[in-house]
Amino acid sequence: MTRKRKHAESDASIQVEGAEKQTDEKWLNLFNLVIRKPGGERGTWQMASRRQQPRCIDGDFSSPDAVIIVPLHIESGKLVTTREFRVPLCGCEYGFPAGLVEDGESVAETAERELEEETGLQLVRVLRTSPPIFSSAGMTDESVAMIYVECEGRPLERAGVGSEQIEVQMLSRDEAARLCENHNVKFDAKAWLVVSAFARYGEI
Amino acid sequence: MTRKRKHAESDASIQVEGAEKQTDEKWLNLFNLVIRKPGGERGTWQMASRRQQPRCIDGDFSSPDAVIIVPLHIESGKLVTTREFRVPLCGCEYGFPAGLVEDGESVAETAERELEEETGLQLVRVLRTSPPIFSSAGMTDESVAMIYVECEGRPLERAGVGSEQIEVQMLSRDEAARLCENHNVKFDAKAWLVVSAFARYGEI
Repeated sequence: MTRKRKHAESDASIQVEGAEKQTDEKWLNLFNLVIRKPGGERGTWQMASRRQQPRCIDGDFSSPDAVIIVPLHIESGKLVTTREFRVPLCGCEYGFPAGLVEDGESVAETAERELEEETGLQLVRVLRTSPPIFSSAGMTDESVAMIYVECEGRPLERAGVGSEQIEVQMLSRDEAARLCENHNVKFDAKAWLVVSAFARYGEI
Repeated sequence: MTRKRKHAESDASIQVEGAEKQTDEKWLNLFNLVIRKPGGERGTWQMASRRQQPRCIDGDFSSPDAVIIVPLHIESGKLVTTREFRVPLCGCEYGFPAGLVEDGESVAETAERELEEETGLQLVRVLRTSPPIFSSAGMTDESVAMIYVECEGRPLERAGVGSEQIEVQMLSRDEAARLCENHNVKFDAKAWLVVSAFARYGEI
């Protein structure tokens, strides 16, 4: 069991005392967190993490695992989405260009690289960036930063590196509205929220 | 290994052939999906699931695991958020009232029950509902439905059932804007997107 380093969290009346790694896989592992409840009783909590030890053990919550890019194509005024094969869904999902932050990269550098790799488009201007925000904090410590950008260039029809299978889909406001209503397509949750807002307000 | 039942997915050039359960935990498990790549080569993909077998094995993508409620409080015009202790974050996270769909419940029924349990507020009107959308589809098959509602009543200061520790936080448009800019608080990704849009447009 990995013991937890002490770090300040004043309102944590449940204490996480350590993490037991249940699997030894390359990309994703299951951990049992050992917790102590407010009354002193011990318990466990299952979580998944892509890290060697979960963030609640080393206390590092400041850097996102991944960057999700929300690109507005300047010339066409369209929102750039991706339709990508996702193994756990056995099919394609609508989302945005995204990728893991590599060592030493800033969020904007990751965004520029991944936008080019996954869509063929060039980042022109960063509009705004979110703090690291959490995908599903009951289940995992995975965090992402959203970065809203303007871009230019001609999109690739098919893109991606290695086993990625990515189709670029440029959406007008009307197309965005229709897509969000369609219960036959699969959508990333964050992407559905952004595409819905684009349909409603015509901007990102 | 659980073999996958056949179901139509025309664009799946990567095939999922089965799932090997790596752990035997109550709430969350790690699975190795056995995949066949377009060239015929076999591989594996790690994923986490709350289900006995992942959705890509039984082909059931139609029902969400959980419901996330976006409540606008009619009288005050404020957005109702929650600040909840999350074990994997070792601390509190801003989000929305939410809960797992119980057997036989509709999304609206879950929303009504969870809103009352977690905030003390009463659901008055459903504005709109999303399809099931996916939290982080590279890692898990977890899906949620977002339901936007109007509500009334007096919020509880502290709520939650069992070990839940939930604080209700009612946000004006200005408070929402300040909170989204604050890098010292932790935010659920979907909640950050909704709270940001509320800050920007003054509606849900």
